[in-house]
Amino acid sequence: MKKFFQYSLLCGFAIAPSLWAADVQQLPAHVGGRVLESMAADGSKAYEYSWPAVYFETAFNGDSLSLKFDDDQNNFQLIVDGAAPVAINKPGKQDYQVPNLSAGKHTVRLEKISETQSNSGRFLGFYSDDKPVKLPARKRQIEFIGDSYTVGYGNVSSSRECNDAQLFSTTNSQLAFGPLTAKHFNADYQINASSGFGIVRNYNGHSPEKSLIGLYPFTLHANNFVYNSNWQPQVVVIGLGTNDFSTPLNANERWKTREELQQDYIHKYTEFVKSLQRKNPKAEFVLMASDHVNGEIANQVAKVLENLKASGMKRVDFIKFSGLDLQGCHWHPSAKDDQLLADLIIKHLQNKKVW
Amino acid sequence: MKKFFQYSLLCGFAIAPSLWAADVQQLPAHVGGRVLESMAADGSKAYEYSWPAVYFETAFNGDSLSLKFDDDQNNFQLIVDGAAPVAINKPGKQDYQVPNLSAGKHTVRLEKISETQSNSGRFLGFYSDDKPVKLPARKRQIEFIGDSYTVGYGNVSSSRECNDAQLFSTTNSQLAFGPLTAKHFNADYQINASSGFGIVRNYNGHSPEKSLIGLYPFTLHANNFVYNSNWQPQVVVIGLGTNDFSTPLNANERWKTREELQQDYIHKYTEFVKSLQRKNPKAEFVLMASDHVNGEIANQVAKVLENLKASGMKRVDFIKFSGLDLQGCHWHPSAKDDQLLADLIIKHLQNKKVW
Repeated sequence: MKKFFQYSLLCGFAIAPSLWAADVQQLPAHVGGRVLESMAADGSKAYEYSWPAVYFETAFNGDSLSLKFDDDQNNFQLIVDGAAPVAINKPGKQDYQVPNLSAGKHTVRLEKISETQSNSGRFLGFYSDDKPVKLPARKRQIEFIGDSYTVGYGNVSSSRECNDAQLFSTTNSQLAFGPLTAKHFNADYQINASSGFGIVRNYNGHSPEKSLIGLYPFTLHANNFVYNSNWQPQVVVIGLGTNDFSTPLNANERWKTREELQQDYIHKYTEFVKSLQRKNPKAEFVLMASDHVNGEIANQVAKVLENLKASGMKRVDFIKFSGLDLQGCHWHPSAKDDQLLADLIIKHLQNKKVW
Repeated sequence: MKKFFQYSLLCGFAIAPSLWAADVQQLPAHVGGRVLESMAADGSKAYEYSWPAVYFETAFNGDSLSLKFDDDQNNFQLIVDGAAPVAINKPGKQDYQVPNLSAGKHTVRLEKISETQSNSGRFLGFYSDDKPVKLPARKRQIEFIGDSYTVGYGNVSSSRECNDAQLFSTTNSQLAFGPLTAKHFNADYQINASSGFGIVRNYNGHSPEKSLIGLYPFTLHANNFVYNSNWQPQVVVIGLGTNDFSTPLNANERWKTREELQQDYIHKYTEFVKSLQRKNPKAEFVLMASDHVNGEIANQVAKVLENLKASGMKRVDFIKFSGLDLQGCHWHPSAKDDQLLADLIIKHLQNKKVW
């Protein structure tokens, strides 16, 4: 850094002390969830994301750590050495210095908790002048595909009535059933879910040109890069149908009858699961549906399961759930409901002896 | 298509017959090499590339096929049903209609043969109104990492003297030793090579901020997206060092002596192979070097091999080659030399019983 220091004096810059700490380097990061990874000329990496519940982990031996953000849209929580999460809300372009670190080995985990859908943000990495410590790789991987239930939409709200700001600030995707299940098994996870979307029909028929199946192939929502990676989860949990069926059909929609909608849903859902299975033939699939809408969702998912079994697929099951308190925003599952759902999935996977 | 047809009449458009052929669809494509894959709202895929020797394959049952290009920089060859390649040079934005197809099953392969380095182009896919046929997936994968030798720089030239245009038009990366070796084994391949680059030093010291190791992480040359995929070749062949050592050090370079350059090369090369092996622990590695520059390249690669063996790496070998006629542009390997090199690698892999 000597050269830089001399140059800055020549140019008359005032430089904050943290900038010339001798050997501040980006630490290696383990990334959970879909990201568009880029690398600068100096070898430092940046991670762009839009799907919910992405996370970044590192470990080091020392007492100094900063996190570089470029995201004025999302809320995060930071977990140092397994302690209680610290909120970092809409950090913008910020170098966040972790306070009060004692000398020694630390493990650090940054988790995105908010949902922004079509926006994306960037995490620019962990920086330290201390020595990185290798994180053990996880052997378990699980993927959740779904809608607002899987996102954790308004799950920590104290009221069912929420305006946009309240909804945003009371969504904690890391407390939704997906991350709870994954953490129980110490598994890596992806939460490929987006509120309001369905298999063939979105909430109240909005954006008919879109669907969760349409969003699913992409790394980000905002561009059209197809997600290709070595992600090969042992378990895929799908919960889609609430938006397809929770509202009556409007006159301008493409299904003339409820039965047409149901048939379209069953056909597209079946094909979607088959396409996922072709890419990942050893995975265990779990289809989830509530008993809401007088059982209409669950009845259709039961037919999807029947189709899949009839086509010869063996590793697929159906979890029908009920008894939620729906105390989240706009009658969505609460954090308590999320624990109930996670417990159902955990028990199911234990019974199947997946891990 | 009826709706569209009526609409066009109402608006008074004249539409070419090919545009209203009832069911023209993009055929599924198998892609070899690094590409940035994107998908349009209609589900059609596009593939952006800059590394050499990428290829695209499809199969269908019928008599009509067109290829959509968006590339005014590269030369291609098209191979239909294993027949002699047909040249498609700098197609630009073009729908190329394959002529004289008889009815029946066809397999089609488009191969990029030219080198453009920092430019990228896009292949927009195969289109047909005939039914796609599934291509069998290959079980073998091999990667080649290197410089102009691996690119096939000027390998089909009839003269060692070439201007830029001659060099461009006499480079056929598909006739370089990498694709020849891969095709012998019916293996998929990536050619991650770029002319003029080395491990620590490029030809005659140019662009000292760059190196092949620096280019290697990226999907394309032109942006900074890191290549993350499920590509996991069983064999990795590396040939780098000709540019590091083929010219004397210039006064302004960062190595004061030849020995400093050699040490830097040995260290960085060793670390590079180790990093590749960490990502792909079961792969068989082959390091290649010529006897050129009085054996200086081969002597350093021998030391890299020694380092790797000393660090406990077992699946690594060294092929030293000689006897090339170097009849390509600027004293580069000819297509005949490429066959000689391919034969050496094929024999080596047969002896190792890799496949």
